[in-house]
Amino acid sequence: MTLQSEIFEQPARLSDLLGNQRLTAEKIAQTIRQHDIRWVFLAARGTSDNAGRYANYLWGAQNRLPLALATPSLFTYYNQPPQLKDALVVGISQSGQSPDIVSVLAEGRRQGCLTLAITNETGSPLAGSADLVLDIQAGVEKAVAATKTYTTELMAIAMLSAALSENKLFWQQLGKIPGWIETVLKQDVPIARMAERYRYMRQCVVLGRGYNYCTAFEWALKLKELTYVVAEPYSSADFRHGPIAMIEGGFPVMAVLPNGMVFDTLLEMIGKLRHEQAAELVIISDEKRALSLAQSPIPLPVDIPEWLTPIVSIVPAQLFAGHLTRAKGFDPEKPRTIGKITETN
Amino acid sequence: MTLQSEIFEQPARLSDLLGNQRLTAEKIAQTIRQHDIRWVFLAARGTSDNAGRYANYLWGAQNRLPLALATPSLFTYYNQPPQLKDALVVGISQSGQSPDIVSVLAEGRRQGCLTLAITNETGSPLAGSADLVLDIQAGVEKAVAATKTYTTELMAIAMLSAALSENKLFWQQLGKIPGWIETVLKQDVPIARMAERYRYMRQCVVLGRGYNYCTAFEWALKLKELTYVVAEPYSSADFRHGPIAMIEGGFPVMAVLPNGMVFDTLLEMIGKLRHEQAAELVIISDEKRALSLAQSPIPLPVDIPEWLTPIVSIVPAQLFAGHLTRAKGFDPEKPRTIGKITETN
Repeated sequence: MTLQSEIFEQPARLSDLLGNQRLTAEKIAQTIRQHDIRWVFLAARGTSDNAGRYANYLWGAQNRLPLALATPSLFTYYNQPPQLKDALVVGISQSGQSPDIVSVLAEGRRQGCLTLAITNETGSPLAGSADLVLDIQAGVEKAVAATKTYTTELMAIAMLSAALSENKLFWQQLGKIPGWIETVLKQDVPIARMAERYRYMRQCVVLGRGYNYCTAFEWALKLKELTYVVAEPYSSADFRHGPIAMIEGGFPVMAVLPNGMVFDTLLEMIGKLRHEQAAELVIISDEKRALSLAQSPIPLPVDIPEWLTPIVSIVPAQLFAGHLTRAKGFDPEKPRTIGKITETN
Repeated sequence: MTLQSEIFEQPARLSDLLGNQRLTAEKIAQTIRQHDIRWVFLAARGTSDNAGRYANYLWGAQNRLPLALATPSLFTYYNQPPQLKDALVVGISQSGQSPDIVSVLAEGRRQGCLTLAITNETGSPLAGSADLVLDIQAGVEKAVAATKTYTTELMAIAMLSAALSENKLFWQQLGKIPGWIETVLKQDVPIARMAERYRYMRQCVVLGRGYNYCTAFEWALKLKELTYVVAEPYSSADFRHGPIAMIEGGFPVMAVLPNGMVFDTLLEMIGKLRHEQAAELVIISDEKRALSLAQSPIPLPVDIPEWLTPIVSIVPAQLFAGHLTRAKGFDPEKPRTIGKITETN
């Protein structure tokens, strides 16, 4: 039960990270302020790429830093990297091993940019190629499917945002995350029961928007890696521009919509999916108006500030994916085809 | 047969666009050079977002301009847009109507950035909010599923790249595109026959990388809009980081891999998918080594320069999606749920 125990370990790892790395995050923020950083260029793959999606919204909204997600093949196969002047070049990787991510940081350095690695392995090639290293301190992650390294990556990104903002309130809010996750973990048994209903599900879509765009992607990735369900993530806006045509009666739609600025637009969409297209809904939210629409409602603690909801809302999705894996008769510890470290060029 | 006739119209529209708008593209390039443009911030949805993915690779590799895809909700729902200093702010939209895309350009203008609209409607709100307008001149597109507006958007992006490069060879190469597409269109009948094999397909993945990352996304979008197949696009690198676990015997994989810098890595992956995981392969390529692996091979003309392959390689995919729609008994002119103009905030 490595996956399950690593999911349950998250409050402790996040609490430690917050305690141990605040000073480092503040020093990194100070160095960033000393440079004329105009934008962020970020390279990551898989789960870490979803953490990058969180950074895209959070650093954009809270720190006004625009963020470009790297296209690593321009650095490796094409050997035609773009000009990175005035960028903070960031690589996120649990293992710090993937050559394409390392090559983006190496090129950033070559062009004289400030470089930052967010990683679980401070002795890795990625950390070695960076000026600044933020250690996510998740401990060894044995399960192939990443869980605690995802939430600690999100926490590291949020800590850097708080440090750049120099806002004490943000640090107080960050301190409440472990407790909110403890509350969510108490729903493990009902979520296990709920997952059985999806024993024969072959495909689904996963919707989120704004800050929780990343949660939709990460929930979908866990479903694909572990349960082999074809799970496609969307922002509700992109979904409306075409893919919504796929939905027919009974089609399963997972959605994550905690209270916040994009709640109303998502609520309107899932209302239509339920009432006009008879979709099947699995919903993670702290709002009764959303939960009451779902065949499978998963409540979140109320009053989480919107910018921190992704760190909490992925946890029930992790539990759901793990339990669905077992319900389908697969072994969550041994996903077929993939290994713990994936090296791509 | 509006969809089919618009697919067949593409060589003529692309030829006209190239003839009529070269001077405009060169003037726009001149204005861009007069500004201190360091990077591109691009907003688009649906098919136009896939055109944006092409710009990400092409302008990055050929013009060294890094590109960030906008997160429109930061401009609308959150009202916390990032700093856009030194950016060229680009909106791509066939209709020029979607309020979220318009709001990104309006904010760019407010921050003093140079703004560019790439659109089929020069009287649209998007064009009205831009300093520079590149008219894709596709003529009225009646089919709900975009085809000729996609390839003309790609052509506009490629023309701008050629104009920024001031390289005559690039313009000569662009002139050959209509002829290559004519060659592809001659395969309409065999592609129709091929599509029947997938009459009962419910889900698939679509792989591409580098320049043809956009082709994978656009092929998948046509399948979703028209045939309601759950078609998920990936770069082959992202696919390896988890989702590859979904593939089992007979699982359909569409792949587009013309000769070029990423060909070998994609070939290795589809070889494994075929031999080790017994995947079903539909392959668009100009290379026998790739085509010979496929149950359904779709040949491209040889010797297309890699940077222009996306404008040609999407055409057989459009034909495939249209024919599969009919084979499944659906009406390609009336996709359920979606309309021609989608307005999102």
